[in-house]
Amino acid sequence: MSVKIIGTGSFIPEHITTNEDFLHHSFLNSDGSAFEVKNDVIIEKFKSITGIEERRYAKDHHKASDLAFFAAEIAIQDAKIDPETLDYIIVGHNFGDVKSGQLQSDMLPALAARVKQNLGIKKPSCVAYDVIFGCPGWVEGMIQAKAFIKAGMAKRCLVIGAETLSRVVDSNDRDSMIFADGAGAAIVERSDNAEGVLSHESATYTQDETYYIYSGKSYHHSASSKQYIKMHGRKVYEFALSHVPKAMKTCFDASGKSINDLKKIFIHQANEKMDEAIVKRFYRLFREPVPKDILPMSIQKLGNSSVATVPTLYDMVLKNQYPEHTLEKGDVIMFASVGAGMNINAITYQL
Amino acid sequence: MSVKIIGTGSFIPEHITTNEDFLHHSFLNSDGSAFEVKNDVIIEKFKSITGIEERRYAKDHHKASDLAFFAAEIAIQDAKIDPETLDYIIVGHNFGDVKSGQLQSDMLPALAARVKQNLGIKKPSCVAYDVIFGCPGWVEGMIQAKAFIKAGMAKRCLVIGAETLSRVVDSNDRDSMIFADGAGAAIVERSDNAEGVLSHESATYTQDETYYIYSGKSYHHSASSKQYIKMHGRKVYEFALSHVPKAMKTCFDASGKSINDLKKIFIHQANEKMDEAIVKRFYRLFREPVPKDILPMSIQKLGNSSVATVPTLYDMVLKNQYPEHTLEKGDVIMFASVGAGMNINAITYQL
Repeated sequence: MSVKIIGTGSFIPEHITTNEDFLHHSFLNSDGSAFEVKNDVIIEKFKSITGIEERRYAKDHHKASDLAFFAAEIAIQDAKIDPETLDYIIVGHNFGDVKSGQLQSDMLPALAARVKQNLGIKKPSCVAYDVIFGCPGWVEGMIQAKAFIKAGMAKRCLVIGAETLSRVVDSNDRDSMIFADGAGAAIVERSDNAEGVLSHESATYTQDETYYIYSGKSYHHSASSKQYIKMHGRKVYEFALSHVPKAMKTCFDASGKSINDLKKIFIHQANEKMDEAIVKRFYRLFREPVPKDILPMSIQKLGNSSVATVPTLYDMVLKNQYPEHTLEKGDVIMFASVGAGMNINAITYQL
Repeated sequence: MSVKIIGTGSFIPEHITTNEDFLHHSFLNSDGSAFEVKNDVIIEKFKSITGIEERRYAKDHHKASDLAFFAAEIAIQDAKIDPETLDYIIVGHNFGDVKSGQLQSDMLPALAARVKQNLGIKKPSCVAYDVIFGCPGWVEGMIQAKAFIKAGMAKRCLVIGAETLSRVVDSNDRDSMIFADGAGAAIVERSDNAEGVLSHESATYTQDETYYIYSGKSYHHSASSKQYIKMHGRKVYEFALSHVPKAMKTCFDASGKSINDLKKIFIHQANEKMDEAIVKRFYRLFREPVPKDILPMSIQKLGNSSVATVPTLYDMVLKNQYPEHTLEKGDVIMFASVGAGMNINAITYQL
């Protein structure tokens, strides 16, 4: 018995915000002081590290649960299933529904219940809940779906990651350029074949790491007590490089596959340089060079949409939106993510 | 193989707010108009329906994750386990950490990660996540722990419900008198005996019901766009009476036990009259009278602390704080809850 993805979908908001759109922002250091260099220099350096050229923001009248619904509809069409056959709807997010121009999170009711309503699913036994697990929330939702299916408590689940980070960024913080909006979804079901989810790994680091990514005040000190998404970027980078490659190796080893079988790594789109360094270290653990085209990347055009990046990227590759990246039945791939918690997780998956 | 509770804990804040403390509130109808009767009449009627005489509010410097930690510590001591043996920490809530005097939810990182840090657990493979499922969040966390254990993905889990609803109430809304703060926790583990979780039931109703409990503006129309916990009380009442007894019966029937074996029902403390009516209808489905002392109630003194009510009440009964309610090894009990989603769930459990 295995757990197999039978359909995917993603929703990428139409509105493009370019790096140039940040030229007139008033970027401040965390102590409230101004930078000694001009914004064009800050932005160029930002781009060279993160790889981000532009990112997508949701329309004002859309909330995270709307993006989740749009991605879910596509995944359901892709899987060609009757949505009434779903046993679970799991939505990963970290800020709930945030209205444009406000900062307050709303998850009463859970976003999954809103998605279920929008999908028009009548069956009460389709259980709709949200999982809060930092950026790795979608991958964790997949692992939870695996648990329900393995335990005989579900046959078919919809797992979504959706976030509108554009609404929780501090415009005085350079890191505001990183974050984006989006949603990705997958339908998984019980399968009698050997393929599907081969192995998984999940971990929470909370000794020194708990507040590496956190809710904090604006860098503009006269600002209110309102809280925004904040991170200690250097610490996150070092943490990710120390721990993600090992977690991925533990996960991959448990799959029983040879490293030479691995075709693609769908990693959380947090930072281009960081992701490349993680994958380099991962292959070093196997004493292998990094294969060409192992790492599809969407961050350049889509930014970091948290829980949405992995399912969105996987959906886009499956649907041939990255010509250099193709997948075939039987291919072995990995999903991997890292984020607030600090959490790390990974799945080895065979198509 | 079964899933067994090996320890419980609860944290009841010390600060008591009595009904009299609401005498000088300016209660308004949902359209912003004033009531035609005085507050003492409103409060007396409120008490006669809900049963609530007083409720507990957390200290200003405590957040929901602190209450969760306090309850977790007691559960760990009660179970006499090394916390490093935990495979999961699951925290149910609906508003995250809300600082006193603010309305903004903070769940970055997840509350479960904060609890793990406070408990000093070092093992990364102890996965810490939050579940958002309305008031039934703790019961749902127990069902998810069952899934992980049955799937062979965990042996021992800590499941917590924690909420500070006092910080998200609209003081112009009579319903503000219902809500309270608190936390309850349980440790569950894999057991080779037949007792433990005998059956469970879980459901999400989202046709007309999605926004029966919701985030909405203050009834004071000049107020800001800030959002507070709101409910359509009459609709919630009717929904609960229509659906909870049937869901409980489905759950109980799946346990294979006789209704005469059922010793106690630990139901979400939402409203005294509603809970009594639910249990009456539940027994009517079995054509049985309601047994004496079947229904421990804490709502009179503790109010409705959402996800915290069921584990708190169970912990208090186990620890002999309700002399008329005693439990012995082998006793069959039920946990049941209803709330935002709208969600309903239940567990049949044998001690």
